[in-house]
Amino acid sequence: MWTAALAVIGDEILSGRTQDKNVAQLALWLNEQGIRLAEVRIVPDVTERIVETVNNLRSNHDYLFTTGGIGPTHDDITVDAIAAALGVPVVIHPAARKLLEDYYRDRPGGLSEARLRMARVPEGAELIENPTSGAPGVRVGNIFILAGVPHIAAAMLDGLAGKLKGGRPMVSVTIGARAPESDVADLLRETEAAHPGVAIGSYPFFRDGLYGSNFVVRSDDGELARRCGEQLAAALRNAGYEPIEGGI
Amino acid sequence: MWTAALAVIGDEILSGRTQDKNVAQLALWLNEQGIRLAEVRIVPDVTERIVETVNNLRSNHDYLFTTGGIGPTHDDITVDAIAAALGVPVVIHPAARKLLEDYYRDRPGGLSEARLRMARVPEGAELIENPTSGAPGVRVGNIFILAGVPHIAAAMLDGLAGKLKGGRPMVSVTIGARAPESDVADLLRETEAAHPGVAIGSYPFFRDGLYGSNFVVRSDDGELARRCGEQLAAALRNAGYEPIEGGI
Repeated sequence: MWTAALAVIGDEILSGRTQDKNVAQLALWLNEQGIRLAEVRIVPDVTERIVETVNNLRSNHDYLFTTGGIGPTHDDITVDAIAAALGVPVVIHPAARKLLEDYYRDRPGGLSEARLRMARVPEGAELIENPTSGAPGVRVGNIFILAGVPHIAAAMLDGLAGKLKGGRPMVSVTIGARAPESDVADLLRETEAAHPGVAIGSYPFFRDGLYGSNFVVRSDDGELARRCGEQLAAALRNAGYEPIEGGI
Repeated sequence: MWTAALAVIGDEILSGRTQDKNVAQLALWLNEQGIRLAEVRIVPDVTERIVETVNNLRSNHDYLFTTGGIGPTHDDITVDAIAAALGVPVVIHPAARKLLEDYYRDRPGGLSEARLRMARVPEGAELIENPTSGAPGVRVGNIFILAGVPHIAAAMLDGLAGKLKGGRPMVSVTIGARAPESDVADLLRETEAAHPGVAIGSYPFFRDGLYGSNFVVRSDDGELARRCGEQLAAALRNAGYEPIEGGI
């Protein structure tokens, strides 16, 4: 199984000012690549904290993604912190400089010193294309440094699709029922136990005055996930609850 | 400075199925208590991973909050994992049992074995009131075990408001400008450097065809934050950008 971790770098997330959207977005993208998002850490804009987090996560997972902190201002310290974590200097990447020169040529202010900061990379890095705005993402070793703005991060991921080694994509089968989860706890446990290699998650809700639950069967063996889903649906029906394929 | 960490426990977040809302919600609540959310980790429903995460975070911060995994089904392992982390047994809390007996007395199925799971706590724990649904949260030492469903977690936090020791609430002053952040990078850095004890975050956006940025001045010294905000506004005006108080 291939795993990835995500380090979200940003005071704006930890202060509650900004609602993170990169966790879910990266998770779904990784599923398609056959890679599992195994861990996320959200850390502040503090060099030592980023260094420690990056060094822990990059050695415990096949891939490490980071989001945030790659802009032109003083609080954008991700590249410097990752270079420090790797013990390499920060250098201006010639192709990134060229990209920024082209991007800012006809814009007011041109390629200022602040903007040139966005061409700085840890030595040995490659660029990740950014079709949305000027500044590229950065790949160095197994670390992928992405923008914090979700639609820019998404565009960078688009460009990386299919390029990372992974296993089989995770398949999930969702079955809903108008059942409080506590009423079907036993049959969930038994169905999971009867299908090694699947995990069944139970997600209750209360909506429109009614209790319900969605049960998510996940496996990287699609056939097994489907078989387990069918058995779960049958068990729910047996217990008096109409299973709703695709969830509620 | 008082700090807290949050461990979000849940495959549903790491799979991308569910968009987390507890990070931002807890962060804002902690700000009001004078406590800073200093770190978040999102981990899967795997005992060893929860144990390791809980033991790391509870010793590095004044408070540790967890969300998720306290329901009645097989994938709800938070209480067991935290008891294992603390090296104490899991026991049925008498008052929690009573709460659940009352809650389920007139509901179909009554207090089943699955539902009674929600009265299980690490030995030595106290309950956190849950005005929304039957099952209480749990406090053990400096660990606060909350529900994963955001509105239930919010209700538990309401009940805890004002009860935790903290410092001065964090004050933030937001100033917007129709400026690309790269145009004002120098004045941001200089303004921050001239006000030790404040951090200025820069959050660019592109909306309605226009570039803009919001600058957030944060400090636990409210007077200092306001003074720094005024100076930043003056510097922006000097640079030809109209400062917009409260942000854009």
